[in-house]
Amino acid sequence: MNYNDATLVEVDEALKEAHIAFLSYKNFSGNKKAQFLRVIAEEIEALGQQLVDTAMRETNLPEARIINERGRTTGHCRMFADMVEEGSWVEARIDTAIPNRMPAPKPDIRKMLVPIGPVVVFGAANFPLAYSTAGGDTASALAAGCTVIVKAHPAHAATSELIAGAIKKAIEKSGMPQGVFQHLHGASFEVGQALVKNPLTKAVGFTGSLAGGKALFEVANKRPEPIPVFAEMSSINPVILLPESLKRDADKTAASLAASITLGVGQFCTNPGLIIAVEGEGLTKFITALSAEFTKALPGTMLHQGIADNYSKKLTIALSQKGVMVEGESAAPGITSQGRPLVASASAETFLKNPSLAEEVFGPFSLIVRCKNSDELHKVINYTHGQLTASVIADESELAKHVALLNILVEKAGRLIINGVPTGVEVCPSMMHGGPFPATTDSRFSAVGIDAVKRFARPVAFQNFPDALLPDELKNDNLLGIWRLYNNEWSKK
Amino acid sequence: MNYNDATLVEVDEALKEAHIAFLSYKNFSGNKKAQFLRVIAEEIEALGQQLVDTAMRETNLPEARIINERGRTTGHCRMFADMVEEGSWVEARIDTAIPNRMPAPKPDIRKMLVPIGPVVVFGAANFPLAYSTAGGDTASALAAGCTVIVKAHPAHAATSELIAGAIKKAIEKSGMPQGVFQHLHGASFEVGQALVKNPLTKAVGFTGSLAGGKALFEVANKRPEPIPVFAEMSSINPVILLPESLKRDADKTAASLAASITLGVGQFCTNPGLIIAVEGEGLTKFITALSAEFTKALPGTMLHQGIADNYSKKLTIALSQKGVMVEGESAAPGITSQGRPLVASASAETFLKNPSLAEEVFGPFSLIVRCKNSDELHKVINYTHGQLTASVIADESELAKHVALLNILVEKAGRLIINGVPTGVEVCPSMMHGGPFPATTDSRFSAVGIDAVKRFARPVAFQNFPDALLPDELKNDNLLGIWRLYNNEWSKK
Repeated sequence: MNYNDATLVEVDEALKEAHIAFLSYKNFSGNKKAQFLRVIAEEIEALGQQLVDTAMRETNLPEARIINERGRTTGHCRMFADMVEEGSWVEARIDTAIPNRMPAPKPDIRKMLVPIGPVVVFGAANFPLAYSTAGGDTASALAAGCTVIVKAHPAHAATSELIAGAIKKAIEKSGMPQGVFQHLHGASFEVGQALVKNPLTKAVGFTGSLAGGKALFEVANKRPEPIPVFAEMSSINPVILLPESLKRDADKTAASLAASITLGVGQFCTNPGLIIAVEGEGLTKFITALSAEFTKALPGTMLHQGIADNYSKKLTIALSQKGVMVEGESAAPGITSQGRPLVASASAETFLKNPSLAEEVFGPFSLIVRCKNSDELHKVINYTHGQLTASVIADESELAKHVALLNILVEKAGRLIINGVPTGVEVCPSMMHGGPFPATTDSRFSAVGIDAVKRFARPVAFQNFPDALLPDELKNDNLLGIWRLYNNEWSKK
Repeated sequence: MNYNDATLVEVDEALKEAHIAFLSYKNFSGNKKAQFLRVIAEEIEALGQQLVDTAMRETNLPEARIINERGRTTGHCRMFADMVEEGSWVEARIDTAIPNRMPAPKPDIRKMLVPIGPVVVFGAANFPLAYSTAGGDTASALAAGCTVIVKAHPAHAATSELIAGAIKKAIEKSGMPQGVFQHLHGASFEVGQALVKNPLTKAVGFTGSLAGGKALFEVANKRPEPIPVFAEMSSINPVILLPESLKRDADKTAASLAASITLGVGQFCTNPGLIIAVEGEGLTKFITALSAEFTKALPGTMLHQGIADNYSKKLTIALSQKGVMVEGESAAPGITSQGRPLVASASAETFLKNPSLAEEVFGPFSLIVRCKNSDELHKVINYTHGQLTASVIADESELAKHVALLNILVEKAGRLIINGVPTGVEVCPSMMHGGPFPATTDSRFSAVGIDAVKRFARPVAFQNFPDALLPDELKNDNLLGIWRLYNNEWSKK
């Protein structure tokens, strides 16, 4: 089915609706917002097989993956529901008055997080459910008390329509204002740009390409009133293999990395696109084993033809660089809409001379960088851009000798992993899904886990307010029983 | 004394030093950073009268103000010392592994805030101590574990040198790496620009004009790797006077507002530059009383000639707008380096037609906007830009009828005040000193209070780390006794 792009008038009206709805929705209690989020989860589940079939057809993803992603989507709706119901996320701070303080009386001041305003969310091609219409951005923005306008990703517009329908049912069942969630289509950049430019838009959530994210970031910063854009964009997720572990476990490491690189036809933001190791017996064994794994790996149909074309183009560029050697590739025949698993290698010298090799090739590809020594390995890591993740495969004893390596990696990535692969992003409070540019536009925020709500909230202080006019979170009697910093002491009283 | 602008080579070297120092300083314990911050406070106090005299000479501020500001500066150094010594500011979250979870095991993940990297701080003209060399930006960045490069404000370069000297003594006494704090001069925009452009700079703190802050924000966003800029820039801090209170307390309100507008020759970011009220008996009485207060008010020498010239220019522009009437002004003669207290008024109609009237006039000036009714008052508020503060002077009974007004004000400002003036920014956890653009470049952060540290920190998750390699904050045994979210429960265990 084809959907028409929203007109500029429709964008404008959507923002006006979102703004009006925001002025009431923002004041709804945590319980009411929680109920809304839970009904969204139920309505998504009620879509049943139709949702699964539609998403499979539009994205070429297998049924198990879609079902898994649906679970993750309803899961984070319920996680944020629990969070707002509990209520402590607002970071309440209360400092009571000291009227007789010298030389000047101390006023009563209380502070909490409030929602930032209408948020524009861009559906992500690679997560038709978990990072699209009712994805983490939408759920966290709604939890914060923001209203949301989703621009559907054109590659899965029908899936997006289904989810939007479920959210609209939840709006009616929960008695929410209509404008709390709106859904627009837009295959052109103009629609996205108009949404970000609109003066009533107060923040943006985006998951996608570096070019797309950067373009929106620039539009947002050039507004008369710049607004925050959280764009999660580009990461090659380096994996560092230390020699002792590699010597012993080359085969096992190769198998787990091959599985991670080819998982979902390599279309995860946390796909390990760079493997770094010092040359030697271990690395030779590892490359042989990885090559064998890749020969066995099967090409897979990618999310859409544009992504397949882009993978093929970026792969050709990478492989045409002087000094880059193919180490292994799928032996099975493929067609043009498929991503062919391929692994190549280059010396550190080649890598350090060629900035294009540090760029993301979105698909089932990884580049092994062969270093002469530890020093060169450090240089390679320092040379890489900001990342979502960085992993180290190592024996515990050799790790202790590489504290300096971990010390650099903390500066490069939002999540460090020991003896594991970066794919598989756990949804929990301790998850950090974000990282220094170009992984995201702001390394101070996470797109996954309860803290994702902070992207869409701002603190407001209330000075000398009568108790009755304070938000419940800040009233003298802690009606909600939340954690508050009360005169410098944490308390639920 | 004249100080030479730093050369581009010096800027480059400073950042290299800051980066090297960062790689060790960032790992220092909270206790060690706390001790450093406390020695900074002591060394500033040890500067004694020389600091006071120098600051008075350079800024034309009176002795009492300088002494007060010194107290605030040493006070926030000690406040951040207490914060890092206690340690819970890192927002530790721990989710332990569930190896036998189905369908996939849950890994052990732990997250905490880490420092963002070398921070460039621009000294503020209007706060030679509390928002300059050892100001809130520097102290919070050092507390976070960042290294700092301060660009001295040229208007108080000698004061800045003295404070820098005190910090350097503290570096030696506390055994800190030299590059933890550096001090450069730069009267030209080029020095500031080079500091922000340098790839090793990871964040920027700025307090100053809208033009200056926006220029740095743009430089930062155009870098190959954009970085966060927290710029606190421009705010006219609207004060809304509700009729019942005004009828009864016109004189008292006029006296307290006149004092706030003229305090420190109107050179506070929280200066009330806009007074909004509905026409009627109360407003007429108030304007008469305010006019009398302003006739008595004395001109004062401004921070420097540039600020005085700018005040005079902006004031002339405001007063030349059709429909703007002078309501009162200082009767005393003044000289060109002085700011003459003046208050004017305009109808809401005039205000709404003239965007220049919503802009900051930095100095002892305020514009009264006369509204025909409550509806027009709402329009005026909606029309104003983002603000640091918004105040309402009202009887408690009439406040209850104006919940809609408070509902809009929350969207406009970082701090709402009932029956008080916006000047006087309390340093405490509940303070929010920030607000929607153009008050600041990011309404999600505060420049005052312990939460100011969050501007310069980013979360990092550690997955599957051996306990020994985790930061102390995340080790199994809570060695530091800090608050942590442990498997979704807050605990100090």
